[in-house]
Amino acid sequence: MADYRKMWEDLGMDVENHDLLCSVLPGAIGDVFLSQENRPEAMDYFDMVLADVHGLRPAELVEFKKNGGKVFGTFCTYVPDEIIFAGNGIATGLCAGSQFWVPGGERYLPANTCPLIKAMLGARFDRTCPFYRLADIYIGENTCDGKKKAYEILGTDVQMHIMDLPQMKRPKDIEKWADECHDLLEMVEKETGNKITPEKLAENIKKINAKRAALKRLYDLRKNKNVPISGTDTLLISQIAYYDDPERFTTMVNKLCDELEKRVADGVSVFPAGTKRIMISGTPMAIPNWKMHNLIETSGAAVVCEETCTGTRYFENFVDESGENLDEMVSNIADRYMKINCACFTPNSGRFDDIIRLAKEYDVDAVIDVNLKFCQTYDIEGYLLEDKLKEAGIPVLGIETDYTDSDAQQLKTRIEAFIEVLG
Amino acid sequence: MADYRKMWEDLGMDVENHDLLCSVLPGAIGDVFLSQENRPEAMDYFDMVLADVHGLRPAELVEFKKNGGKVFGTFCTYVPDEIIFAGNGIATGLCAGSQFWVPGGERYLPANTCPLIKAMLGARFDRTCPFYRLADIYIGENTCDGKKKAYEILGTDVQMHIMDLPQMKRPKDIEKWADECHDLLEMVEKETGNKITPEKLAENIKKINAKRAALKRLYDLRKNKNVPISGTDTLLISQIAYYDDPERFTTMVNKLCDELEKRVADGVSVFPAGTKRIMISGTPMAIPNWKMHNLIETSGAAVVCEETCTGTRYFENFVDESGENLDEMVSNIADRYMKINCACFTPNSGRFDDIIRLAKEYDVDAVIDVNLKFCQTYDIEGYLLEDKLKEAGIPVLGIETDYTDSDAQQLKTRIEAFIEVLG
Repeated sequence: MADYRKMWEDLGMDVENHDLLCSVLPGAIGDVFLSQENRPEAMDYFDMVLADVHGLRPAELVEFKKNGGKVFGTFCTYVPDEIIFAGNGIATGLCAGSQFWVPGGERYLPANTCPLIKAMLGARFDRTCPFYRLADIYIGENTCDGKKKAYEILGTDVQMHIMDLPQMKRPKDIEKWADECHDLLEMVEKETGNKITPEKLAENIKKINAKRAALKRLYDLRKNKNVPISGTDTLLISQIAYYDDPERFTTMVNKLCDELEKRVADGVSVFPAGTKRIMISGTPMAIPNWKMHNLIETSGAAVVCEETCTGTRYFENFVDESGENLDEMVSNIADRYMKINCACFTPNSGRFDDIIRLAKEYDVDAVIDVNLKFCQTYDIEGYLLEDKLKEAGIPVLGIETDYTDSDAQQLKTRIEAFIEVLG
Repeated sequence: MADYRKMWEDLGMDVENHDLLCSVLPGAIGDVFLSQENRPEAMDYFDMVLADVHGLRPAELVEFKKNGGKVFGTFCTYVPDEIIFAGNGIATGLCAGSQFWVPGGERYLPANTCPLIKAMLGARFDRTCPFYRLADIYIGENTCDGKKKAYEILGTDVQMHIMDLPQMKRPKDIEKWADECHDLLEMVEKETGNKITPEKLAENIKKINAKRAALKRLYDLRKNKNVPISGTDTLLISQIAYYDDPERFTTMVNKLCDELEKRVADGVSVFPAGTKRIMISGTPMAIPNWKMHNLIETSGAAVVCEETCTGTRYFENFVDESGENLDEMVSNIADRYMKINCACFTPNSGRFDDIIRLAKEYDVDAVIDVNLKFCQTYDIEGYLLEDKLKEAGIPVLGIETDYTDSDAQQLKTRIEAFIEVLG
């Protein structure tokens, strides 16, 4: 890690405090990832990205910025990367998944705010994340109350561009979102100084669709009876999707899929025959939040699908590539993103349909619905969701948790009991 | 109260459970209102409405419905009553301010939801509020995450009409809100079977403006050095504003103001000279939530203004009466409602300006910023608000509370200490 100290200092980071964060990472990687048996070889790339998560990609962004490039920080699956890359900008995820950043956020936010939002503000104001330092402009989106209001506090320290996501999905709401996407396009043009041509946008629609196709290929492989990759490993890949160069990422996921396809053909699984198949639904799991996957997969079950923003919500539905001018393309982009079923929408019955469909597609034995503490939208939606799953005959366990380890033992006991009951 | 039992039974209420709620009301009225000294005589009307809050007005609504009238339940200052009354409908507030309803709501909602929202669901599902039984259609509005998602659960039991409030205030957002107001108008026409003519809408714009003018007159009187009415009494009036017949209410408020003007002319105050003047800012206080006013005014201070939905946000800004056709009128209505500065908007700097302006207008010594527990928008906004007030040299005390009495003694101690420091 020592190689990057100079870069972190140049980025104005609190390097000493940041060392504390770096020092726990190797142990966590060993415990959560390297301890798994029979991992695919192509996980090497993702392990390497993770091991130097605050070094490798930030160094690339530093180089990019030296040549005048603009970096746009995003917090949500609703922000269309296509538009940012079409302006020769780079989009990078800023969602924060470590308890390390939470106390810093609590200096600005009420304690009863979700840990993801608290970590966002902690990572910024404590200056302990290079991505937060590197992003020139943060793109906020009005999804939940917590983020919407936290963006105002971030806005005292960094340039923000806010997209007003409608909260319903009538045709006029989709039009409104297309209009917000147009505003984003204009902002990206202005900030980068680059014109977004139809050719450039078409090219980047294809590029991001290819990334989605690679992830879909990976997820489809998990539908097999012999599951060729753990949920924990897949989660890491989904997390890295938010940070990595899209083309390289797509290549590396496809390379992994080649290996996994061979595993499937050879009948190789990372889980013993008869292992219960679990789908996780709920709130996003930002890097390095691997808590639930680790608990479930060390309790004798397999996570075979995530109906989350670090899962199917990220890659399902492709942007229609038939748009012939900017307006049509932006409209197609808006259509695609408005198909994501986040609990911030009302009604959000599409999400119930998704979960029931995915449960069948992935042949799951049960759903574990995981909500970050104080996430009101998913928490309240859980009431109707549990009803729908019961109607569909799908066992469900509802869990509320945060980034601390204090509830880990209790959760493990509940998960083990739940899996046992599945018979 | 016995006269109304038959009506409550006919409304399908749980009358026995409801008796428990009724039984505590007289004591509360005595403690909070009748114990005050030198109350204006014209408070008699409001005392009467309160004493029979679940009888008098519900009986009128029952009569109205016998003749085919439609009652529309509302939860928010953003829903334009003008449109409902223009369709010969009646709008009635459904916001719930009693702890009595909270446990019922907790059967459907996470415990860490704001008490107002929990009480809403409890009042509906426990069948212990006649207004919830009488409203044919509930009008929800996407203000906060908690209400937005709770409306989905209400929607399993009652017809809902949802208005999608934008979360920003750019010109295009105001247009979007006008479009939502148009949808409301069409829904009211459909449900009532009555055509909303320009004449009818113009008449009701004037009627609701007159109600605002009466409340403004009442509030302006509180700006005097000799405060002619307590904050506790004014809060009750603001709460009744959501339920009462608008014309009668306007008449009774104006009658009260006649008396208060005489008091001002005579130098009569309900508070001793030198009493510290407090403005409350923050979340709405639905009937019968008088907790903070009672605590503050029994601690030796006067509440002279409320920057809340049961205060200035309800009546400030009038609808422009110059509209000549339905489109212009609806547009003017949308303009007026979008001037309300709720913490659900981002940015919401207009609210900081409001509070600082009101602090001057009402010559307050300090602001007490009161947030209902788990109300994320106001709670997070409080961080920037406190900064702005400090910059403006206005002392501020931030309080988070719910509908229980368990924190009353602790709050009283804090309030007394705060008032003492004001010197």
